[in-house]
Amino acid sequence: MTATTRADLAQVSGVASERDAATRGFVFNHTMLRIKDPRASLEFYTGVLGFTLVRKIDFAEAKFSLYFLVLTDDASAIPDDDAARKQWLAGQPGVLELTHNHGTEAEDGAVYHDGNSDPRGFGHICVSVPDVVAACTRFEELGVPFQKRLTDGRMREIAFIKDPDGYWVEIIQPTPLG
Amino acid sequence: MTATTRADLAQVSGVASERDAATRGFVFNHTMLRIKDPRASLEFYTGVLGFTLVRKIDFAEAKFSLYFLVLTDDASAIPDDDAARKQWLAGQPGVLELTHNHGTEAEDGAVYHDGNSDPRGFGHICVSVPDVVAACTRFEELGVPFQKRLTDGRMREIAFIKDPDGYWVEIIQPTPLG
Repeated sequence: MTATTRADLAQVSGVASERDAATRGFVFNHTMLRIKDPRASLEFYTGVLGFTLVRKIDFAEAKFSLYFLVLTDDASAIPDDDAARKQWLAGQPGVLELTHNHGTEAEDGAVYHDGNSDPRGFGHICVSVPDVVAACTRFEELGVPFQKRLTDGRMREIAFIKDPDGYWVEIIQPTPLG
Repeated sequence: MTATTRADLAQVSGVASERDAATRGFVFNHTMLRIKDPRASLEFYTGVLGFTLVRKIDFAEAKFSLYFLVLTDDASAIPDDDAARKQWLAGQPGVLELTHNHGTEAEDGAVYHDGNSDPRGFGHICVSVPDVVAACTRFEELGVPFQKRLTDGRMREIAFIKDPDGYWVEIIQPTPLG
């Protein structure tokens, strides 16, 4: 049954009766996705979705690089100093980590699996926006591929676009559509 | 090259020269993972990691349910009213959405793919904690399986535990280890 009150939610099977004090200060910090081509992914995440690149770490010997991005209207809160920025980043919720294994950008076709066909697992990330209709109009203008337009299917208030690796990015609006 | 200053980061290939004003108010809201058994996953995410279940939505006809969880020390900020809570949730960063396709809990063995063997894609989620050594000691006491203990390998300041579906959950500490 859909749980509609907080009392209902507390009764759902498996939910802890109270939060363990040992988890105080825990933060759901980031989600990591592997990417084929960092230039394409950074164009998409910074240019199309407005993320800010906060750290880039290269592991030359192991031949991979990590890119950490946040989506914030207050970029002035991001520390300039590298050590301070690293510490700040690890305390933030909603960080996106992109992993680039060097050389994949030269391969033909898709390199990674989006999780939505067998074998399934990961489904999507989601960006909420103040105006989902305006956001989707802009994505169309920018040539972003859609998995589901607002007008497709029965759920007319959500869309799914695709990032350069084909990962699904759900687009929603917190407030009811006008 | 590892980008160590914000000026370096702005020069990384693909990074937008400035943020498009059309992305103002965008929030990296959630990450969705499919789960086999909601009871096991809720025991793990609420009991072991301290998440709070904020919404549960059942689609009886399509035979799936969605569980939305947040990890916050201020549960009093979560609205009681269902419509207000839905709107609040969609504006938060760092939400975890778990999708349960009804009946998978009765299947033998693992149902979903963690993304870290072929075909690869999604890698992990990460929870940052105030004290990674204390957190890992507690996970051991709770019988949580580890993908990588703090003492494994070269990176001694990070661990990976596994959720009930085998998804990797990185555990880090923002501050330097004592």
